[in-house]
Amino acid sequence: MSTSSPFISGHVKKKIGVLGASGYTGADAVRLLARHPEVEISALTANTHAGKAMDEVFPHFFMLDLPVLAEWEKVDWTKLDAVLCGLPHGTTQEIVAAVLKANPAINILDMSADFRLRDQEMYAQWYGHAHRAPDLQGEAVYGLTELYRKEIIAARLVACPGCYPTAVLLALVPLVKAGLIDAHDLIIDAKSGVTGAGRGLKQNTLFAEAGEGLSPYSVAVHRHTAEIDQEIGLAAGVPVTANFTPHLIPMARGELCTCYVRLKGASADDLRAALERAYRDEPFVHVARKGVMPQTQNVRGSNYVQIGVVADRIEGRAIVISTLDNLVKGSAGQAIQNMNLMFGWPETTGLEQIALFP
Amino acid sequence: MSTSSPFISGHVKKKIGVLGASGYTGADAVRLLARHPEVEISALTANTHAGKAMDEVFPHFFMLDLPVLAEWEKVDWTKLDAVLCGLPHGTTQEIVAAVLKANPAINILDMSADFRLRDQEMYAQWYGHAHRAPDLQGEAVYGLTELYRKEIIAARLVACPGCYPTAVLLALVPLVKAGLIDAHDLIIDAKSGVTGAGRGLKQNTLFAEAGEGLSPYSVAVHRHTAEIDQEIGLAAGVPVTANFTPHLIPMARGELCTCYVRLKGASADDLRAALERAYRDEPFVHVARKGVMPQTQNVRGSNYVQIGVVADRIEGRAIVISTLDNLVKGSAGQAIQNMNLMFGWPETTGLEQIALFP
Amino acid sequence: MSTSSPFISGHVKKKIGVLGASGYTGADAVRLLARHPEVEISALTANTHAGKAMDEVFPHFFMLDLPVLAEWEKVDWTKLDAVLCGLPHGTTQEIVAAVLKANPAINILDMSADFRLRDQEMYAQWYGHAHRAPDLQGEAVYGLTELYRKEIIAARLVACPGCYPTAVLLALVPLVKAGLIDAHDLIIDAKSGVTGAGRGLKQNTLFAEAGEGLSPYSVAVHRHTAEIDQEIGLAAGVPVTANFTPHLIPMARGELCTCYVRLKGASADDLRAALERAYRDEPFVHVARKGVMPQTQNVRGSNYVQIGVVADRIEGRAIVISTLDNLVKGSAGQAIQNMNLMFGWPETTGLEQIALFP
Amino acid sequence: MSTSSPFISGHVKKKIGVLGASGYTGADAVRLLARHPEVEISALTANTHAGKAMDEVFPHFFMLDLPVLAEWEKVDWTKLDAVLCGLPHGTTQEIVAAVLKANPAINILDMSADFRLRDQEMYAQWYGHAHRAPDLQGEAVYGLTELYRKEIIAARLVACPGCYPTAVLLALVPLVKAGLIDAHDLIIDAKSGVTGAGRGLKQNTLFAEAGEGLSPYSVAVHRHTAEIDQEIGLAAGVPVTANFTPHLIPMARGELCTCYVRLKGASADDLRAALERAYRDEPFVHVARKGVMPQTQNVRGSNYVQIGVVADRIEGRAIVISTLDNLVKGSAGQAIQNMNLMFGWPETTGLEQIALFP
Repeated sequence: MSTSSPFISGHVKKKIGVLGASGYTGADAVRLLARHPEVEISALTANTHAGKAMDEVFPHFFMLDLPVLAEWEKVDWTKLDAVLCGLPHGTTQEIVAAVLKANPAINILDMSADFRLRDQEMYAQWYGHAHRAPDLQGEAVYGLTELYRKEIIAARLVACPGCYPTAVLLALVPLVKAGLIDAHDLIIDAKSGVTGAGRGLKQNTLFAEAGEGLSPYSVAVHRHTAEIDQEIGLAAGVPVTANFTPHLIPMARGELCTCYVRLKGASADDLRAALERAYRDEPFVHVARKGVMPQTQNVRGSNYVQIGVVADRIEGRAIVISTLDNLVKGSAGQAIQNMNLMFGWPETTGLEQIALFP
Repeated sequence: MSTSSPFISGHVKKKIGVLGASGYTGADAVRLLARHPEVEISALTANTHAGKAMDEVFPHFFMLDLPVLAEWEKVDWTKLDAVLCGLPHGTTQEIVAAVLKANPAINILDMSADFRLRDQEMYAQWYGHAHRAPDLQGEAVYGLTELYRKEIIAARLVACPGCYPTAVLLALVPLVKAGLIDAHDLIIDAKSGVTGAGRGLKQNTLFAEAGEGLSPYSVAVHRHTAEIDQEIGLAAGVPVTANFTPHLIPMARGELCTCYVRLKGASADDLRAALERAYRDEPFVHVARKGVMPQTQNVRGSNYVQIGVVADRIEGRAIVISTLDNLVKGSAGQAIQNMNLMFGWPETTGLEQIALFP
Repeated sequence: MSTSSPFISGHVKKKIGVLGASGYTGADAVRLLARHPEVEISALTANTHAGKAMDEVFPHFFMLDLPVLAEWEKVDWTKLDAVLCGLPHGTTQEIVAAVLKANPAINILDMSADFRLRDQEMYAQWYGHAHRAPDLQGEAVYGLTELYRKEIIAARLVACPGCYPTAVLLALVPLVKAGLIDAHDLIIDAKSGVTGAGRGLKQNTLFAEAGEGLSPYSVAVHRHTAEIDQEIGLAAGVPVTANFTPHLIPMARGELCTCYVRLKGASADDLRAALERAYRDEPFVHVARKGVMPQTQNVRGSNYVQIGVVADRIEGRAIVISTLDNLVKGSAGQAIQNMNLMFGWPETTGLEQIALFP
Repeated sequence: MSTSSPFISGHVKKKIGVLGASGYTGADAVRLLARHPEVEISALTANTHAGKAMDEVFPHFFMLDLPVLAEWEKVDWTKLDAVLCGLPHGTTQEIVAAVLKANPAINILDMSADFRLRDQEMYAQWYGHAHRAPDLQGEAVYGLTELYRKEIIAARLVACPGCYPTAVLLALVPLVKAGLIDAHDLIIDAKSGVTGAGRGLKQNTLFAEAGEGLSPYSVAVHRHTAEIDQEIGLAAGVPVTANFTPHLIPMARGELCTCYVRLKGASADDLRAALERAYRDEPFVHVARKGVMPQTQNVRGSNYVQIGVVADRIEGRAIVISTLDNLVKGSAGQAIQNMNLMFGWPETTGLEQIALFP
């Protein structure tokens, strides 16, 4: 087959690198960037696979003509306009610091957890060590597009939120801000597909272990909780401690958070109306009609989020349900959405894919 | 192959019938009864498949020598000692009444919802019509073995609980009874495999629809909620309205309920200790050690229940997690456990299978 | 959310209809057409769902502004430029005849089996009745793009091949034509995901039945065999009878055919070289490097085909493996590829999506 | 819960050890042995997990009172009557030699590949090194129960066949022996669930990689081919080279082999009749009625094998399909079946479980 791109374009494209291209978030970034009309993929790093072709690591890229995987230290960062970073937390902060030192004008879309927490103590408490790039931690903007669009446009370093926080915060922040729900009684039962655990080899993500069964994990200790507390707390204006209980579900992609909330004089319909107002002009956030349930099938492979509201049987309570694809809106898609903002392109560029169903 | 049973036994076996043998609960009853040393399967009914061999309807029974599927009206009920009933709700009550009229001495293990609610109004409200066998509704014993063992031994008609209520009530009733948790703040996020929806043809249970995705369903209106309200209310001594939010999970069997509870002065460790006390001598209910999470994989195909307790991040709250196989302890297995009690056999007879993992 | 399209285009778009939009092939046509820059979806039919919004039938289309589902008789076909037809075989021929009668200039991309067989007797034999539009049967072009590009460009009615024949013929026709393999000793072990069976309600495609297991079906009688015989026979210049043995695999999408062939003096490397020559300039057909195995994961959701060749242990035999997504290159994608040809657009327009992996 | 066994028995039980209890075959041996009425599990080894409780490694054993995992060197082999060995090939031969040296009277049921090949050169060729216990290799009996029952009864060391060879040989050996099919034109398209690859951490068996897709692997080089060649060759009386092409299927358990055979004057019905004769009195091998297709769902979790025969479309060819559970009849179940023979118990003891469907 011919691998020369059938998608020719006269204008100059921005040059993009992907740090950590051998992981699932890196690969989904490549999947989307390869069809993004304004960019070209100019560098891919994966230190343990350096020297390999990308399609040796991810054979579904056989049709693309991609740069060979390189060690991140070997890349000439001055040649790039932006970098999407899919490295593990902990190592990210030092590498990002080095990249920015090499090219202070580069835009960084970080998909790791390293720059999401605003408070150094909070970071140290949840990640077990002092932050190694505290200045950058201070500079970074929390990249939940719909909530921080203005800050992202002006930013150089965007800390894209975790997949769970993206789903939860889009569902709850407008309600907390509007004073419709109690920020101190948030119970969040979260369910995620197995890619949420990454491509690393772990026994519990083997097909024979994770298939045909479901298991709670990291109950009350999952690190994404810190982001939820932080952002709900900001919305509420007071420190918040939320329940957050993740479960591993036998599917590859997708995430659904069932949030149990206590109403402050409002009804479930009020919540739905408030969400509709908040997201009326948003291209990617959809509030389901009354009676329609969000389900992960509706967003698989896409950058869309679907949110629904149901009245609880318990007087004064409601259920807010939010779903997204953890690798797209929960990671690489949101990074590209932010990149579009930073470069002044229409926010939806390259992200128009509809869910792959069935 | 030889289909003559390799399991010869000199003593006289009880003759058992299965009403509704072409559904999943009926089939799982057959799977277990066929290897139960004290019984023989003497009648199988399935009106829409009458005249067929059982292995035309369920080919995995090719090794068994089973009665041909019959219309229930054609069965001579006076020849049987007990019947397991896997019919849909609504039709069950009239057929059970007819069977008991034909043979008042027969034991009935009903796996449908028809006799689970004690109150006629409550039944009418949840099922949309007046009960058509109110006397039997009054006579029936709620067949949650661990809670009603004495009543079951003395009963003729046992209404085996729904799969969800079995998981929820085993987890919560001892805690409510002991006054350790608030019965008015129960949030139950439930997840079930697809067999919970039965073998009927529905679009949402097609492989291509239910696979690789998850969806909430019947939120705040699922009929199993009525049983939960009823039994928690009895334990609490006051009427109770619980949250109950089921989700469809891409697996065939298994169910896991994550229950969010408010503590009444107790700690999560107190809850675990109370459950351990309650189930110390139970053969099928297992309380997981601190730090061990129940998961459906641990109970698949077995009659076991696993319950775990975790302290919540929110002060004064805890999370109680319960898992079982919806077709075994959630249905056919519990029916056989009750049948064992009614006939005076060891409760574990025929139910010793360990989970099939992986 | 805003449903106004973010993809504005000054030029006039072709108006496309989809017949049978409530099935899986119809839905995948909508998924792809909705993001195709040269077309607008102007009519959707689904007689049993007429009057409904498309997102009531396929909720993952919540973000699209689509025509309401209509009865096909109610559509004004003179307003449309082309129709993709995803109706069941049998009914298709009469409806297509009616559409062409209403608008003889319309282009028809038929995804059903109705116009694939060139011979009326062969049709009658495999489908059990005389063809009801024999003139159109004679007019139709077999829409395997890579083999009949010239004919498709000139056609009005294109009979897009079945999913299995597309995979098999792309793998074998160049080898038969080049005289490298024996056309009379073709053993084709085929495996398909469950969407191949459509969205109709069947017991064997329920999640609980098809999941976690695999089963052969329609062995030696599957209707796609007729197309394979026909096209291999044309390539060979003599009538051919092939083995074709399909298996149902627990996945939603994807198809892989393992073809066991007898070599005519050639080696496995010769076969690979011949395929590479045949597909050197093809945008969608990829021949895997020696040692690389095609797998359905590589093409899921995409219009690509991947073919690999391995030498058999048995002297003088080889194994040719071919994979595609049954709903894309095996159905809606190939229809759009042909539509692109018919309208003179680049063949890849709207079909650039890379496989969704994982 | 109470973990004291509910299954009391007055007679003295045989003491059984399991070498390699932390793998899937070891675990399935434990699952079956724990409910076997004639044995007690007296030793479990797993050198990398020594000191752990079995339910730390396999939590679904929470209800069993099992020996702590030990290093194999620490076990007193003189106390045991038999050992099931689920170690990887290569290391097995030395450990088995040591065990037999410690206790020459012990019975060994080896589930590894180490003693299956009768010829030392063939072993060296397929496994890449000279056998390190050639005397034992000579002594070992090939443990395909239905073919070598007499030899197994008399043996001390039984080399239980691979899962694939068990399925293939049960389907083909009687046909080759009867001269009904050509031993030199055997094409075996094999499909296996993911547990066939074991519990070791490999990228291709991660849920996100193996799920929702299928891939051929080890085409024409899989080591099980050696056993197939060996045993078909013995049946044919001449050396044989078979095609054998395995595929990884997205399910945990189960295996189905589709064997394409050339008939020697016989018909498909003749093949079926020959298989029925061969297995008439066998408790675990079932020949499906004409028109009934074997499927893995019929045998999941059980020791049964199902075989079916279909006439091919190609004149003079037929298709023989065989299915089993790779961890039961393909491994631990067959080992126990052989153990039953060696100890003089009814062959079905402890193996009566019916398939877990759905």
